Amino acid sequence: MRALDLSLYLVLDPVLCRGRQGMVDTALAAVQNGVTIVQLRAETMEKREWFEAGRALKAALDPLNVPLIVNDHIDVALAIDATGVHVGQNDLPVDVARRLIGKEKWLGLSVSNLEQIQAVPFDVIDYLGVGPVYPTSSKRNAPAALGLDMLDDLVRYKRCPAVAIGGITAQTAANVLRCGVEGIAVVSAICGQDDPAQAARVLRAEVDIA
Amino acid sequence: MRALDLSLYLVLDPVLCRGRQGMVDTALAAVQNGVTIVQLRAETMEKREWFEAGRALKAALDPLNVPLIVNDHIDVALAIDATGVHVGQNDLPVDVARRLIGKEKWLGLSVSNLEQIQAVPFDVIDYLGVGPVYPTSSKRNAPAALGLDMLDDLVRYKRCPAVAIGGITAQTAANVLRCGVEGIAVVSAICGQDDPAQAARVLRAEVDIA
Repeated sequence: MRALDLSLYLVLDPVLCRGRQGMVDTALAAVQNGVTIVQLRAETMEKREWFEAGRALKAALDPLNVPLIVNDHIDVALAIDATGVHVGQNDLPVDVARRLIGKEKWLGLSVSNLEQIQAVPFDVIDYLGVGPVYPTSSKRNAPAALGLDMLDDLVRYKRCPAVAIGGITAQTAANVLRCGVEGIAVVSAICGQDDPAQAARVLRAEVDIA
Repeated sequence: MRALDLSLYLVLDPVLCRGRQGMVDTALAAVQNGVTIVQLRAETMEKREWFEAGRALKAALDPLNVPLIVNDHIDVALAIDATGVHVGQNDLPVDVARRLIGKEKWLGLSVSNLEQIQAVPFDVIDYLGVGPVYPTSSKRNAPAALGLDMLDDLVRYKRCPAVAIGGITAQTAANVLRCGVEGIAVVSAICGQDDPAQAARVLRAEVDIA
């Protein structure tokens, strides 16, 4: 597997992608056009469907050497031998997650405010997700948007690579990257777009310029 | 840990029990009055709360040598070192579940119809949950109630111990046990009752007579 490259991070949404095959098609179009890492996040799906979708995504991404991260469900990540796990503040604690996944799998953690980033055990995780930068409709119960100034403030506390997330588009990507994160994560900027390949290309160009 | 005793199986509901401490109190009152095994099932809770509730329940039940089963989330079961896992038809497949939990932990599987029980890999699981016997309001998207005749039919196919579940009360417990299951599982017959200890005692008396 390639080294951790957060520069353009796709978080799949099964509703926007219209199901399992739509997620696979979207992921393939995206990674062939500049996306470097893919996360499965499916808040509305039952565990069996997470597993089946994860297995299909792994089969599609492994030949391309693209890492697959599973959100929240460490059992699914272990079942499909995903590259890593991403947990939020309401998921399993990162020390527990690390114990369950071992040393080899990547572990990401979401933070949304100063208190959370100051409490991060940086020796346990591989990367941070910071956001939401802008208002988002892709995540249930998302915290309030940070804005660029607060993103800039939070990022100063990080001791590992970070990816910004939340409402980021090709128009705002450069401004976000200027805050000192290693990459941007997107959901609806690719998932559900008429042409996900083209959407990924446009985002990739912005990332490369920044 | 004592041997697998399914005779009176409590499935905790965090809503009926009013939260984590309510689940612990209910579980303790129940196991001190005849409940032999406890399952944590919390469809509405986030993973962190599952973990915290599971940890609190394990701390309460371990000294009493009462097994704790975690529904669906194998990562939580591993994190708290639960006695076992219970999966449904929409959770991880039982062969995958067995691989993740190892040989020592118990594995239960829910079945609701003939096709499902005929497809069970009995070499992989330790017990079956069969139901719902009667209509239930404790589980989201529960299949149609079996009734006693269909329960009786299904149970003939089992090659391991089974517990019946779904709307069972002290009034119906004896009739259900006559169908050839090793135990009854209850949710609302104990959770949310004014006196869970007394509710457990009454159920235990019915089980012992049957």
